[in-house]
Amino acid sequence: MSGLSDRVARINDVLCAVNALEWDTRVMMPRGGAESRGHQIATLKGLAREMILDPALADAADAARHGGDPLEREAAASVAEAIAYHARIPADLLRRKAERSALAGAAWAEARARSDFALFLPHLEAMVALSRETAAALGGAGHPYDPMVDLFEPGETAASLDAFFGTLRAGIRPILDVALGRPKPRTDFLARDYPVEGQQRFARHVAAWLGYDFDRGRLDTAVHPFEISQTRSDVRITSRWPRDYLPMSIFGTIHETGHALYEQGADPVLVRSAHTTDLRGLYAVAGTSFGMHESQSRLLENHVGRSRGFWEVHFGMLRDIFPDQLSDVSVDEFVAAVNRVEPGFIRVEADELTYDLHIMLRVRLEVAMMEGALAPADLPAAWNEGMRADLGLDPPDDARGCLQDVHWSHGYMGSFPTYTIGNVTAAQIMDRLRRAAAGLDAALAAGDLEPLRARLSEAVWRKARRQPRAALVAGLGGDAGDPRPYLEHLRSRFAAT
Amino acid sequence: MSGLSDRVARINDVLCAVNALEWDTRVMMPRGGAESRGHQIATLKGLAREMILDPALADAADAARHGGDPLEREAAASVAEAIAYHARIPADLLRRKAERSALAGAAWAEARARSDFALFLPHLEAMVALSRETAAALGGAGHPYDPMVDLFEPGETAASLDAFFGTLRAGIRPILDVALGRPKPRTDFLARDYPVEGQQRFARHVAAWLGYDFDRGRLDTAVHPFEISQTRSDVRITSRWPRDYLPMSIFGTIHETGHALYEQGADPVLVRSAHTTDLRGLYAVAGTSFGMHESQSRLLENHVGRSRGFWEVHFGMLRDIFPDQLSDVSVDEFVAAVNRVEPGFIRVEADELTYDLHIMLRVRLEVAMMEGALAPADLPAAWNEGMRADLGLDPPDDARGCLQDVHWSHGYMGSFPTYTIGNVTAAQIMDRLRRAAAGLDAALAAGDLEPLRARLSEAVWRKARRQPRAALVAGLGGDAGDPRPYLEHLRSRFAAT
Repeated sequence: MSGLSDRVARINDVLCAVNALEWDTRVMMPRGGAESRGHQIATLKGLAREMILDPALADAADAARHGGDPLEREAAASVAEAIAYHARIPADLLRRKAERSALAGAAWAEARARSDFALFLPHLEAMVALSRETAAALGGAGHPYDPMVDLFEPGETAASLDAFFGTLRAGIRPILDVALGRPKPRTDFLARDYPVEGQQRFARHVAAWLGYDFDRGRLDTAVHPFEISQTRSDVRITSRWPRDYLPMSIFGTIHETGHALYEQGADPVLVRSAHTTDLRGLYAVAGTSFGMHESQSRLLENHVGRSRGFWEVHFGMLRDIFPDQLSDVSVDEFVAAVNRVEPGFIRVEADELTYDLHIMLRVRLEVAMMEGALAPADLPAAWNEGMRADLGLDPPDDARGCLQDVHWSHGYMGSFPTYTIGNVTAAQIMDRLRRAAAGLDAALAAGDLEPLRARLSEAVWRKARRQPRAALVAGLGGDAGDPRPYLEHLRSRFAAT
Repeated sequence: MSGLSDRVARINDVLCAVNALEWDTRVMMPRGGAESRGHQIATLKGLAREMILDPALADAADAARHGGDPLEREAAASVAEAIAYHARIPADLLRRKAERSALAGAAWAEARARSDFALFLPHLEAMVALSRETAAALGGAGHPYDPMVDLFEPGETAASLDAFFGTLRAGIRPILDVALGRPKPRTDFLARDYPVEGQQRFARHVAAWLGYDFDRGRLDTAVHPFEISQTRSDVRITSRWPRDYLPMSIFGTIHETGHALYEQGADPVLVRSAHTTDLRGLYAVAGTSFGMHESQSRLLENHVGRSRGFWEVHFGMLRDIFPDQLSDVSVDEFVAAVNRVEPGFIRVEADELTYDLHIMLRVRLEVAMMEGALAPADLPAAWNEGMRADLGLDPPDDARGCLQDVHWSHGYMGSFPTYTIGNVTAAQIMDRLRRAAAGLDAALAAGDLEPLRARLSEAVWRKARRQPRAALVAGLGGDAGDPRPYLEHLRSRFAAT
């Protein structure tokens, strides 16, 4: 290994250790450990930052840039970008953001539990101010939202999203009108009593069937499910198991499995040098962007997990595990129930068709807060007005309104667009793979995942973070910014004649 | 915080993160994660070493040494000692030892599984050579064993141990003769079928009763049980649950709980600066010495857990959990069974009376290997000869002989003495506490732990690593090097008339 690879590997070791600690914090840590864990993570992130800003790393990148190894040259460019990024963010700002984020997270949890926006307001004001300070430090001539969304989805801006979401919204509306005019399917059986042990058995079975490698991962329990990776050889997923709402554990597990396959499926040689693209955000393993990552979770969750072919294969086992709860349910009824359309207050419980309307509302609001057009104090009113306009609903309280999501308390301004970008990208990829392989849909309809898995593995997972989203879709002959294949998917699922 | 405290806190953060990763490695990690985990731990240990050898740390220690804060002055002395220690060990030697240790560990596991000493021999030779190189680097005019045992038990030497063990062996022998001449108690019921879930329920109950704080810890499963701490607020224990041998999980859990109470019971203010004493061995939390730590695990396991008073309280619950297995057993029979004396081949299964004979054999052999008097190739013969002389047993194979322990494959030359030192120290502490508080034994006999726990908390746990073993025992009016209270304990338990 060259000096550059050695240095990058050491930085990645530290960042992977941070991910291991984050996993422990959310899944295993006794509550008494919170304070000292905070110190540990802050110290390790600080060390990683020092290692990135060590002038010797820049020297090593310079040397590699003029060397003969193409992977090393690629790594050198990523490293230079990471150094430039970290050099622009003062350590003091990072520290203040981390400190405030810890306080804001606790205040948010209490505010949501008590549905009391006033408790959260000063922290939201502080986080917005810190985000504006971060945007100013990162610079650029555009909208203050631009440097923030760029952290999660490089290349996107307030303007690009505005145009993109406009097209999407205009396309979703008529589909929603058709869907809402249709008779409601039965859903009573989804809320029967489902013991946790059976849910976990089914979730493990499904994850393994989808290709999740339990020798390089674990499935555990978390309040807010997530996937987290150290390297491709240790990629862990979590789910939750409410006894009175079966879809949560099933689709949550499939979603996180999609994230995990993107990590586990990376080619160990190809990704070696490209690990460096992760250094910018101080995350060891995060794919090329949040939207790229999300495309794989949404592809598995919606295109595979909610398909009739999938349930042809798995409904029998589910009914074997829960015979009392599902004896009066047919596979058609089950598929219809998990695809029902029903506007609601809560994003994480939204159906596939209304989900993006929740996202677009949040993006409009965070853009307005970043540019100063919306004062945090006015957020509840703006939120409720948006819900009425978009979904025809009046949130009964702020807990089921603007306090429902954790993101803003963490300072994740600019991350919401990536959920919808993931949906659109998943449909683009499916569309391109279908065109290239005629038998794909027939196989899926017959419950055979193998042809799709082989193509995803080759076209997406194997090259993992060496291919940014737009380049990957372009390489398949598609256009990542074109929502038409996604709208076509929604239309055929929810408004086919 | 001064510059010194800040720097030490950061180093401790890194070392605590290492402990969190070690726990994960042994309890949670999927097997695919082993290689990248090895890199992470090596990188973090390397960073900690660089932070210790950073000249700015020495400057901060110098400044604190002349400052007015007594805790800071104490910390400065410990830091200076840590710096001197690490400065003497070349990074290259550490790296070679770590690399060889990973190979040797795998080779040992295979050699033990196949009972094939030849597989392990080249690795043992390498580890002995590396230990001799380490001893030479650490220096000193004495026996090459001295700097090694000093890592685990500061102040002890080959000569001091020789004298100490000589007295102990001479005292144990006549007690063993009496014990072996007595009728054997019933032990058949210990090997009945005990489902794991019930064992875990009982273990959790006992740990909590002993004072283990589950808000600052967890009890999990490990192949080789251990306790590991990050700070006093996250102290985790493990046990194992063989269905066909009940004492393993019970006494294993009590043992690790004893280690944990020593950590959880530390006063958060008093231990702050003294954290620095741990920097020498690159372990964040290890008490003042292994023997000090072990004294608390053995005290709980043997003086409390094997006492009649303990089982007066807990046998009812155990029988409630396992009614079929224990319906024909009285509490007297149970106590007699868990205190039976029966020489055997395996150290970790040994009874309290023969345990130290296993230890003394290992110490004789590792001293001889360190001085070059015993070639690793001759270890099996020397081992078997020792077992015949000390316990009258002929090991049937090397798996049940010199391959049974993991220590030498890890390069832990010099750690074995601390097990027996722990036993002797536990008895010294019990003896001194008894003299100072007349009602202690009566309370224990009545199953009341509170008086003992209050005294241990004040005299031992609270000051934790600010009190080295010898000073702690001297402070109670005892002598840590005097085995008589331990022999008296063994005599009254196993040879009382």
